[in-house]
Amino acid sequence: KAVDFEALDYDNIENELHIEEERKMTYSDWKWIQLQRWIVCMMIGISTGLIAVVINITIMQLMDLKMAVVEEAIIRCVKDRCLYVPLLLWIAMNVGIVSIAALLTVFVAPVAGGSGIPQIKCFLNGVKVPDVVRLKSLFVKVVGVVCSVSGGLAVGKEGPMIHSGAVLAAGISQGRSITFRLKTRFFKHFRNDREKRDFVCAGAAAGVSAAFGAPVGGVLFSLEEAASFWNQALTWRIFLCSILSSYTLNLCMSIYHHHPGDMAYPGLINFGKFSGTYEGFELPVFFVMGVFGGLSGAAFIAINHKITVYRIKYLTARFIKVIEVLIVSAISATIAFVMIYLNTDCKPLGEDPNVELQFMCNDGQYNTMGTLFFTTPEEGVKSLFHDQLGSIQPATIIMFVVPYFFLSCWTYGLQVPSGLFIPSLLIGAAWGRLVGICMNAICPDCDWTQDMSKYALIGAAAQLGGTVRMTISLTVILIEATGNITYSLPLMTVLLVAKWVGDLFNKGIYDMHVHLARVPILEWEPPPLSTNIHAREVMGKPAVTLKEVSLVSDVCSVLSDPRNCHSGYPVTDSEGKFRGLVLRTQLLILLKHKTFVERSAPGERLKLSVFRDTYPRYFPLSIVNVSSEEEQCHIDLRPYLNPAPYTVYEHASLPKIFHLFRALGLRHLVVLNDDFKVVGIVTRKDIWKWG
Amino acid sequence: KAVDFEALDYDNIENELHIEEERKMTYSDWKWIQLQRWIVCMMIGISTGLIAVVINITIMQLMDLKMAVVEEAIIRCVKDRCLYVPLLLWIAMNVGIVSIAALLTVFVAPVAGGSGIPQIKCFLNGVKVPDVVRLKSLFVKVVGVVCSVSGGLAVGKEGPMIHSGAVLAAGISQGRSITFRLKTRFFKHFRNDREKRDFVCAGAAAGVSAAFGAPVGGVLFSLEEAASFWNQALTWRIFLCSILSSYTLNLCMSIYHHHPGDMAYPGLINFGKFSGTYEGFELPVFFVMGVFGGLSGAAFIAINHKITVYRIKYLTARFIKVIEVLIVSAISATIAFVMIYLNTDCKPLGEDPNVELQFMCNDGQYNTMGTLFFTTPEEGVKSLFHDQLGSIQPATIIMFVVPYFFLSCWTYGLQVPSGLFIPSLLIGAAWGRLVGICMNAICPDCDWTQDMSKYALIGAAAQLGGTVRMTISLTVILIEATGNITYSLPLMTVLLVAKWVGDLFNKGIYDMHVHLARVPILEWEPPPLSTNIHAREVMGKPAVTLKEVSLVSDVCSVLSDPRNCHSGYPVTDSEGKFRGLVLRTQLLILLKHKTFVERSAPGERLKLSVFRDTYPRYFPLSIVNVSSEEEQCHIDLRPYLNPAPYTVYEHASLPKIFHLFRALGLRHLVVLNDDFKVVGIVTRKDIWKWG
Ligand SMILES: Nc1ncnc2c1ncn2[C@@H]1O[C@H](COP(=O)(O)OP(=O)(O)OP(=O)(O)O)[C@@H](O)[C@H]1O
Ligand SMILES: Nc1ncnc2c1ncn2[C@@H]1O[C@H](COP(=O)(O)OP(=O)(O)OP(=O)(O)O)[C@@H](O)[C@H]1O
Ligand SMILES: [Mg+2]
Ligand SMILES: [Mg+2]
Repeated sequence: KAVDFEALDYDNIENELHIEEERKMTYSDWKWIQLQRWIVCMMIGISTGLIAVVINITIMQLMDLKMAVVEEAIIRCVKDRCLYVPLLLWIAMNVGIVSIAALLTVFVAPVAGGSGIPQIKCFLNGVKVPDVVRLKSLFVKVVGVVCSVSGGLAVGKEGPMIHSGAVLAAGISQGRSITFRLKTRFFKHFRNDREKRDFVCAGAAAGVSAAFGAPVGGVLFSLEEAASFWNQALTWRIFLCSILSSYTLNLCMSIYHHHPGDMAYPGLINFGKFSGTYEGFELPVFFVMGVFGGLSGAAFIAINHKITVYRIKYLTARFIKVIEVLIVSAISATIAFVMIYLNTDCKPLGEDPNVELQFMCNDGQYNTMGTLFFTTPEEGVKSLFHDQLGSIQPATIIMFVVPYFFLSCWTYGLQVPSGLFIPSLLIGAAWGRLVGICMNAICPDCDWTQDMSKYALIGAAAQLGGTVRMTISLTVILIEATGNITYSLPLMTVLLVAKWVGDLFNKGIYDMHVHLARVPILEWEPPPLSTNIHAREVMGKPAVTLKEVSLVSDVCSVLSDPRNCHSGYPVTDSEGKFRGLVLRTQLLILLKHKTFVERSAPGERLKLSVFRDTYPRYFPLSIVNVSSEEEQCHIDLRPYLNPAPYTVYEHASLPKIFHLFRALGLRHLVVLNDDFKVVGIVTRKDIWKWG
Repeated sequence: KAVDFEALDYDNIENELHIEEERKMTYSDWKWIQLQRWIVCMMIGISTGLIAVVINITIMQLMDLKMAVVEEAIIRCVKDRCLYVPLLLWIAMNVGIVSIAALLTVFVAPVAGGSGIPQIKCFLNGVKVPDVVRLKSLFVKVVGVVCSVSGGLAVGKEGPMIHSGAVLAAGISQGRSITFRLKTRFFKHFRNDREKRDFVCAGAAAGVSAAFGAPVGGVLFSLEEAASFWNQALTWRIFLCSILSSYTLNLCMSIYHHHPGDMAYPGLINFGKFSGTYEGFELPVFFVMGVFGGLSGAAFIAINHKITVYRIKYLTARFIKVIEVLIVSAISATIAFVMIYLNTDCKPLGEDPNVELQFMCNDGQYNTMGTLFFTTPEEGVKSLFHDQLGSIQPATIIMFVVPYFFLSCWTYGLQVPSGLFIPSLLIGAAWGRLVGICMNAICPDCDWTQDMSKYALIGAAAQLGGTVRMTISLTVILIEATGNITYSLPLMTVLLVAKWVGDLFNKGIYDMHVHLARVPILEWEPPPLSTNIHAREVMGKPAVTLKEVSLVSDVCSVLSDPRNCHSGYPVTDSEGKFRGLVLRTQLLILLKHKTFVERSAPGERLKLSVFRDTYPRYFPLSIVNVSSEEEQCHIDLRPYLNPAPYTVYEHASLPKIFHLFRALGLRHLVVLNDDFKVVGIVTRKDIWKWG
């Protein structure tokens, strides 16, 4: 299964064509390319912001519509004792909306399922997950997330923004679209994996920024995952992209809400203002909450792990995947309805919540469970954060949080676009508020137990930290999303503790999914105590090599042999000494253009633009027709090969190789002996097997 | 001059001794080492926090004392018309206090002069600035910064904290002190450059954290400067260290202020609460302020550049350096006094400022210039941020900011510990407030022109951003230091703009100082259009090499030849093929212990602990006595050499080499030809020359 994933190549091919191009370049050409990078980043930022606007507004409209219909039916049926009507209506509408998301995801772009964060992690780590940055994935992601959120699933719309930003970045930076057959002469220098990955970093950051109103958090997220070395200019560009994304979203939303210029909408989520403070002696309480968050997150992951394994094993047929989504959707609606029905806690109207569903309550009252179940999860989080002490009963919270925990656990990993942040925050805010209520019960008159938002926030952070286990980027994202820095120290403490505790049991949820998909991503550090393992044991051998001037038939036979279906081949001279590395894709292009020594004028070479134009989707060998006469011709690889790729000596240790791969983003590492002959080749998967 | 700086070696020596040690290690030994890393980081964090407490309290006490004496003299002399008495008293006290700082710095540890940030930047970049992480530097730094701040120089106490944290980290992580002849058996695994640099990262982060109450900003500062690849576990440890440092400071300060448990003292600076907001249409104003900040910062740097060049050329004698400090100190006091004297703006007592100097004002009034000049710069910043509109006249601000600009420009680079953050913030807050006053004059009744703190904050950020040009870390530091996230978007915008504008004219001030000191630090990216430059042109050649089994006399002659005074020598076998790299320090130790083939049992080898114990201060060759008989012995280098260091082929391009050096933190890179023979060696300085 790991064979499906190709690696990205972060190393530059410095062949004769490139050097020639560079020699012709003046300093101002170079400056112009730099400037283009900034322009592309600005475009990415703005368009990511616009996508966020579209998602946000569509969801709001759809939700309003849906809720209005259901509420109207409820009001009518409470009197007429026909409560099954709104229930069925609710289920039907949810299933209907969600089915769009499920069908699109399953049949058009399966990679758009889930939050997209694991896939983007993989991409930034250097693995090409098929289709992940294609335009159709973006389309499915955007439509899908709108449907799955409005369809009442226990999902958020934030995670998918990151994927959307990444796709936009990959698209815009190439200056053309293959799907739309659009082609411009701009940005041709950016048509390679290295540049693309940098832009995808920017896009992911812009996505985080728009999702959470967290420009700095977005930059950190990208850097943390991309993990190649920190380049200041790149960081600064990513930062600009993030900021613009947040500004764009803010501007559009402020116009939409008829307050143009108001700076209150930097992100898709908005947790409202936190005004309280905390005391030093509360830290132990927060610490314990961190521990609980770690435990609860680990439990979430463990259950989701079981479900995911089951899915991978048994739910393989496409239609079954769709049906699972529909079942979950129907159950979600039913549970929500039943819980609202069972809840007998009514409060007088006109207090804080903005969702006031009367249901079976007396006139002038509303059902408190409605504020949690009869809204988007974002509104639920907001209620739990900010509603006054006593406006939601502990029993109501428990009746909400327990089924919601299992529901969201089941939901994550369904074949629909779905974010995990908001459900985690919702679960955490719920039990955090419970803690707050307990504290208040213990000391009803203390100053510091009056403010529920503090406990809800810490609980939310603990739960999220225990589930996703991101590090410093998450801290910053949370601080920026809550728009409050007073709680930064406790938030940090809680996130640290939750991660520690959670890590005792299992990996973070994204890592778990990456692991189950068997994507060969590289960890942060080489496997412990592996200095004793040498290149010779790690490498693939014997290496399939080509000669500097090869017979076409040899090239064809190497390329067509399924056992040799590698992406790069070391090139040797007549004595067998290593002379460079040529990529499979280059060979295909050379064959297709019949760049044979016998057929071309001396010194004639294929243009660089031919290579660039074919990137990133190459053709199979089968479309290349080589006549038997041509098979006797020769190909001169010397102008095209990478003459000095990174190599190691056969005695190099695994940690050394690991650091090379990780820090430089390599795809191939040729292993040489002390005669400068190729003895093997190390790829990402070879290292990954030792992890 | 660049020859003075040795490089740090971030690459592990994986020789036989290490592999043997690792083979004996169990997984739980390995876990224990990991745990020790966490413990060391915790110790670093806590002790950095404590140092901050000491600095903070001492300065407060000294300032109170000094101000009380001067104020008393002023009050007495305003009546008696003997104003020269307090002036002379003030000058005498300042010069007296500052002379301690100057003498210590000049005669004990010149490296403790200035803010220390450039030196730490260099260290993290991979250059060993002599003495920078020694205990005596810490001592001078701490005493010096207390004296220079209390002595009324235009300096802050924040920058030096970063250096202090770094020294503490280097000291604690080694588990021993050479100065104090203290030696423990702990942490012996950390006695090498690689581990030490990681801990110094943590120390620097803890320093930032304590200085600005900015744990996240601290982590980012370290990562940005260290720029080796982002390792999650390391980041997380650095983060813990940062948080603990801030907690420790907070706890101690809250006890000192008799509010134990109050969380209001996370950093040395405290800018108070910002409560305002801003409107979207104000962004253009902020943008212009960013441009101005960039210009003003560039001017600051240009002037400071001239002064620094003059200093390097002419002020070389030690006593002149001390005298310069004393002169600046006297002038600072005089200017402050004269400005307070000239200022005729008096305000009724009892409004916001906490410094209420009556001077020549009527009873019940105070001199507004006193709030700026008669305090620490921190208090000045606070006044400019928070005093009400109208409490300080524009004329007063101008009379303050112009001389202060030049004063702080002259002061930075004096041979005393001195931070630049606070003076920059003070200048920026001053002109920012002027902008605010202008805005208010333009539209006196607008809501959004009532709040001066907004403009002062943006101005401060712009000035600081234009001067130091740090990127994302600075943004986070400012956000955390102001404890306000509402302004994060405008702050980011302003910092971006200020950096862009400033970069049009010159480099950031720290980079400028690093450049003038001719420290070979590596930039973020390889020089543009350099693919055409190959290893052969970059490397030092011919390489001085040694044989695997060398004659002692050969080794001695290589080591003693001043032209060959290199830190590493490639080792070759009898055929001349490359076999590994041995360090000068290793050779010295082998010679000193007379590890000669003829003198030792077969298979006997020097212990790893001998190498570790000698780190980091090695002896010169002169103390090694080799008799003429011993000169005919042989040394077997094979167990000690690094058998597979990173190497490149002679055709590798400069960008490739650059990326290797930068991403892996190399010190030596051996260049091989296609016979696996050594043709040269690339070191940091070779690359730096092309920068
Ligand atoms: N030119 C080659 N000759 C021999 N073995 C190779 C060659 N290239 C790769 N391999 C080996 O083939 C195995 C499959 O690895 P992998 O799929 O990563 O290679 P790839 O297909 O060339 O790279 P990618 O995954 O980037 O497409 C690995 O063990 C690797 O060492
Ligand atoms: N073993 C060697 N043989 C020949 N030249 C060398 C050798 N080592 C270093 N050089 C060259 O000496 C010059 C001085 O460089 P540098 O001072 O960086 O070397 P170094 O002293 O070995 O390293 P460091 O600065 O880390 O102490 C460089 O041009 C470098 O290429
Ligand atoms: Mg493959
Ligand atoms: Mg040297």
